[in-house]
Amino acid sequence: MKGYAGRVLRINLTKKEIKIEALSEEMARRYLGGVGFGARILYNEVPAKADPLGPDNKLIITPGAFVASGLPTMSKTALNFKSPLTGGYGRAMVGAYLGEELKKAGYDSIIIEGKSEKPCYILIEDDKVEIRDASELWGMLTTETHKKLQEMHGKVRTGVIGPAGEKLSKISEIDFEERQAARGGGGAVMGSKNLKAIAVKGTKEIEYYNKSHLRELIIKWGKILKDHPATEADVKYGSGEFYEWVNKERGTFPALNWKYSYMPVYDNLKEGEKSHLDPYYWAPKYTVKNRPCPHCTKPCGRYLKITDGKYAGTEVEGIEYEILYSLGGDLGIDDIGAVAKMNKLCDEYGLDAISAGVTLAWAMECYEKGLLTKEDTGGLDLRFGNDDAAVKAIEMMGKREGKLGELLFNGSKEASEKLGKDSWKYAIHIKGLELPAYDIRGLKGVALAFSVSTRGGCHLTGGAYGVELTGGWWKIKGVDRTKAEWKGFEIKTLEDLMAIYDATGACKFSRHMFFIEAFPEMFKAVTGWDISEEELWVTGERIYNITKMFNIREGFSRKDDHLPWKVSNAPIVAGPSKGLYVSEEELNRMLDEYYLTRGWSREGVPTKAKLSQVGLKDLAEESFAAEI
Amino acid sequence: MKGYAGRVLRINLTKKEIKIEALSEEMARRYLGGVGFGARILYNEVPAKADPLGPDNKLIITPGAFVASGLPTMSKTALNFKSPLTGGYGRAMVGAYLGEELKKAGYDSIIIEGKSEKPCYILIEDDKVEIRDASELWGMLTTETHKKLQEMHGKVRTGVIGPAGEKLSKISEIDFEERQAARGGGGAVMGSKNLKAIAVKGTKEIEYYNKSHLRELIIKWGKILKDHPATEADVKYGSGEFYEWVNKERGTFPALNWKYSYMPVYDNLKEGEKSHLDPYYWAPKYTVKNRPCPHCTKPCGRYLKITDGKYAGTEVEGIEYEILYSLGGDLGIDDIGAVAKMNKLCDEYGLDAISAGVTLAWAMECYEKGLLTKEDTGGLDLRFGNDDAAVKAIEMMGKREGKLGELLFNGSKEASEKLGKDSWKYAIHIKGLELPAYDIRGLKGVALAFSVSTRGGCHLTGGAYGVELTGGWWKIKGVDRTKAEWKGFEIKTLEDLMAIYDATGACKFSRHMFFIEAFPEMFKAVTGWDISEEELWVTGERIYNITKMFNIREGFSRKDDHLPWKVSNAPIVAGPSKGLYVSEEELNRMLDEYYLTRGWSREGVPTKAKLSQVGLKDLAEESFAAEI
Repeated sequence: MKGYAGRVLRINLTKKEIKIEALSEEMARRYLGGVGFGARILYNEVPAKADPLGPDNKLIITPGAFVASGLPTMSKTALNFKSPLTGGYGRAMVGAYLGEELKKAGYDSIIIEGKSEKPCYILIEDDKVEIRDASELWGMLTTETHKKLQEMHGKVRTGVIGPAGEKLSKISEIDFEERQAARGGGGAVMGSKNLKAIAVKGTKEIEYYNKSHLRELIIKWGKILKDHPATEADVKYGSGEFYEWVNKERGTFPALNWKYSYMPVYDNLKEGEKSHLDPYYWAPKYTVKNRPCPHCTKPCGRYLKITDGKYAGTEVEGIEYEILYSLGGDLGIDDIGAVAKMNKLCDEYGLDAISAGVTLAWAMECYEKGLLTKEDTGGLDLRFGNDDAAVKAIEMMGKREGKLGELLFNGSKEASEKLGKDSWKYAIHIKGLELPAYDIRGLKGVALAFSVSTRGGCHLTGGAYGVELTGGWWKIKGVDRTKAEWKGFEIKTLEDLMAIYDATGACKFSRHMFFIEAFPEMFKAVTGWDISEEELWVTGERIYNITKMFNIREGFSRKDDHLPWKVSNAPIVAGPSKGLYVSEEELNRMLDEYYLTRGWSREGVPTKAKLSQVGLKDLAEESFAAEI
Repeated sequence: MKGYAGRVLRINLTKKEIKIEALSEEMARRYLGGVGFGARILYNEVPAKADPLGPDNKLIITPGAFVASGLPTMSKTALNFKSPLTGGYGRAMVGAYLGEELKKAGYDSIIIEGKSEKPCYILIEDDKVEIRDASELWGMLTTETHKKLQEMHGKVRTGVIGPAGEKLSKISEIDFEERQAARGGGGAVMGSKNLKAIAVKGTKEIEYYNKSHLRELIIKWGKILKDHPATEADVKYGSGEFYEWVNKERGTFPALNWKYSYMPVYDNLKEGEKSHLDPYYWAPKYTVKNRPCPHCTKPCGRYLKITDGKYAGTEVEGIEYEILYSLGGDLGIDDIGAVAKMNKLCDEYGLDAISAGVTLAWAMECYEKGLLTKEDTGGLDLRFGNDDAAVKAIEMMGKREGKLGELLFNGSKEASEKLGKDSWKYAIHIKGLELPAYDIRGLKGVALAFSVSTRGGCHLTGGAYGVELTGGWWKIKGVDRTKAEWKGFEIKTLEDLMAIYDATGACKFSRHMFFIEAFPEMFKAVTGWDISEEELWVTGERIYNITKMFNIREGFSRKDDHLPWKVSNAPIVAGPSKGLYVSEEELNRMLDEYYLTRGWSREGVPTKAKLSQVGLKDLAEESFAAEI
């Protein structure tokens, strides 16, 4: 089989067993790679009701189908697991060099199962695979761990957890040399297996179906992406390029735990002044260099060094758009130095920087409302905008330190359940996953997408913010973000598309540069398959339905496709989206419309007929699949 | 290319030009045959707003993909045209020997275009194709025409029109040796081209990919169909086998122009007595022999001879379930002899026996209500139940004779428009096509299916009556016929499936014996393609979307997906479905749900995104395709 290594590496940490299994062509063609492989293997192998932090959970690492091919932006690897944070389907995507290295070492996926008795790490050097003692690494911050592994093993590519993952924080992440597979608590899954790190060196070559055609496509699509009108700003300012526009033109940037929907600082800025979170302000000032994912011709990633103010000296890879919100605006902080500092802390301790920030924003609101006192915060004056307190709180979370660190360590859902009273109303999560930087009260289609996303409140499952903020692109046009009507097909289409992206390894920041049309010729060159766009759409739908069935098997139902209390009960107070919110009636209407479009039951359960239509005959036989 | 003749015959009657064009593998794989070819060619070649009875309309004859393969029940040929009755997409399926003969003559389709100056017929004997003078045939009844052609040309297979088609009746049919391509006015399309008949003799052989595998499948599926528990009754009693059950158990058999929803005779029958329309009464009495479609191992067709009563001597092929309604119950007639007589008249004059009967039922109600008088009927006492008057009226329609014949000649929609006043309320049609034998007031999913069917009020586009009457089969179970909720996906699924049936040539009476699972291995043996069920579902959806876009291009919109007035305004008066009807609100709800499931706009227009997803990129570029 061309285009694939053809091998799956299975590592059982309980038995210390290492096996190599063949990847079947059927599996490859039907699930492609990345989340496709991940979702299918998770569904097959992680039993219902398994403890996400027990040995029955698995960590499945699946580079996208095109990873290592050299095709531009095809760099994403999926981390797949049952999420400790949501109790359901979990995956996190990352532009990791480790994924590429894994392919070169001759593996299309790794399945890590069981639990090591003692701290360990996995070392892979082509065919040599070892489970090694990690006593020395345990407790280390992430950067130090990477460094140490590279000292020991030379030019290995690494994925590691920090102290937060070791201590089983449900919002802990896996760090891949300063790129994070952040969402859903994958760090804790590694931690629960006593697995500190994975280090990979690969020297093999994947055999491609048509190498010269592949070379042509690398050049062709590289140029298309590089020359795209949006690329210049992406490269100069990164993913936060549209920060000002989202604030001022749309009013959909949540701030101060969703009290506002744009940064209040805009009310007082003079002509030409910028918010200090705006990359147009800070990127030219602090960017050391761009830092691309593998094979990117439109690199938006960057390495920053803060050179002035009280956070001078802070270095961090970033800062991504989402973080400008979670560790900036949502905390009422308009200081990029403070954001950089907290971002760095999250990366080093191994916390999901979205979830950590949004959980802290919740705590700040609770503090403001008197639900949390200085006694609870260990003396911290947890006012919105108090960057000193915020930095300290993030560190406490990373260390699981003090009463506050303990309270916030597992995210906002668990924290609000512990704190009780009204505090749940201020927790901005869906299914337990903290929301990213889009005020969905003013983006109703995005509200639907967040509510139904199988991994919880997430902007990447559907990626709907793009078409909702702009009014549409590709063949989806005329989108009205203020109306909660007729959104089902839009969201389904985008989810299925994003499943294809996450299966191939494509970067979602290219979806406005090409939609789906690039993939068929890429598959032809890489694998030799004649795979049409139609087949890809069905494949995306197949993958997405597996993730939904995973959740259904865990007991999820319509009520889990909810919205945070504020989204339905606290209309936007000011700005371009003033007055907007998503009523429960609107949500119910959108859910109905979405389920109908998906061919699911009114309870949001995939029907046997739909499962059968997308080639999931075995799932169609499940007793919990819907009849109509 | 295996499994296909590989050639398309194009006959221009204006220019008297005959061309042979190659069938591309892409066309074959993406559209399969039958309605797939038909819909695609119609869309490509018949310009918007073309006069259905002008030279720009085309008659496209497309045997299903498996016709002539010997596979059981794979016998259906599609007649495709712009419908003079609806002004939209038109197709009629028929179990014709001509279709099989056409394949053997070396053609996968015939496209007939233009208009002959004088009456003509087309003679095809393998590679010899001629347009011949038909002066001698013009005016003949259908049986006589078949006979004459066979006298002239030996063992040819024939398709002809009767006087009704010659005179351009919009409810005229095309007769294939006593099997009718009845619905939508195809007869008039032939008539408008001065084309009386087509006669085909074929002696070639199609080359199949794997002949021994094909032989195995013929035996295997032949046996599955033959041994199916439902087959015995089908063979003994034909398609009306469930007549009593539909009347007594469901109360969904429309009678007296939908005044009742079961035959009133049931109120007075003694234990063990049968309605005289019930095949359990008449089939044993009058069946001369079964008459299968080509290669059927569960032949439900039969040849009847009435041997007693005033219609003694009447011989007819039939009588199908639909006709028990249209020429029986709907006219208030419980006399199988009278039904046989009228059925024969329809066949001989070339009238669609559903549309003719339902139009006459409308006239009877108008007569009852005083909207039609004896002056209008030429003295006929057009009471419900008056079989003498009914027989005479059908003959007048066939001949376009008298004021009554003229009024009814083009179906109930046009007749009610001509008659005016309240008479439109009693016309039982959708988009102009008269409704078949299911009282959709008590079958709400079928009501939806009828309303949205692209060829007008039709039971075969979705074939939904099966699952709605029984509560479901295959993976579609738990269907509640009394509720107008959550029907979209059910109907979409069935429509897409039926499109596959109509593209392959499969008989719809096998859909409860196998659903879709037979097709992949059949395609493998016939063509060598690895065609999955998933690919077939998308193909069905692709075909169906073309037929919808054909209508949209003609100006159809949501308001054309209507229901007859009675269905929404006259609840069922008695029987098991008493009180049921479909309110306009319910219809609107179902339309919304259906359009959502289809990925269409609220106006019922396919979206560019959906068209693109099913591989109709050119249609996605149409200005009238919807954006979201």
